[in-house]
Amino acid sequence: MSVNTKEFKESYFVVIFSSQRSEGENGYGKMAQVMEDLASRQQGFLGIESVRDNELGITISYWESLEDIKRWKVNTAHKAAQIKGKKEWYKNYKVRICKMEREYSFER
Amino acid sequence: MSVNTKEFKESYFVVIFSSQRSEGENGYGKMAQVMEDLASRQQGFLGIESVRDNELGITISYWESLEDIKRWKVNTAHKAAQIKGKKEWYKNYKVRICKMEREYSFER
Repeated sequence: MSVNTKEFKESYFVVIFSSQRSEGENGYGKMAQVMEDLASRQQGFLGIESVRDNELGITISYWESLEDIKRWKVNTAHKAAQIKGKKEWYKNYKVRICKMEREYSFER
Repeated sequence: MSVNTKEFKESYFVVIFSSQRSEGENGYGKMAQVMEDLASRQQGFLGIESVRDNELGITISYWESLEDIKRWKVNTAHKAAQIKGKKEWYKNYKVRICKMEREYSFER
């Protein structure tokens, strides 16, 4: 899915989640879908884009404010997934929270 | 490649390039590698991560300043690749320039 942030307010925030998976599925695919669905129903959620190849995964989510990002971080079901993520699904991950400065796009 | 931005200065900038490809290879893979090599030799370049699946590609590059990002945008070889990208390689793309606010990571 490609997200059209041009529809958003002028200022918004971006969470970049880049990760490397552990060996084995262990219910990862289902959890990822459940978490994406749950995130999309949170206050301030604007959109999400996700790509994974054999080496690296990058998920970018877009939010109205830093408060919305914090609220999602401490969501109970999301916290449970984070704990399982550290135990089973990820070899490593990085979370970067950024403020959108400017954007432009091309469409054929 | 996973980028360890913790080594960077406290403040840095991020370019998120998300794109959907046109049909056909047309020298895309070679160009992508050449551009990544060239970007990595530019002033202020800190790192790059790139993932592509069948639907979407996301490339994230990290830079010391907005001026460094602008300088890379107008680099002659890069401009030539941008023109070819619009003509041949991409159905659509979005470029978002963001300021890093905070980050944290997990390593097994």
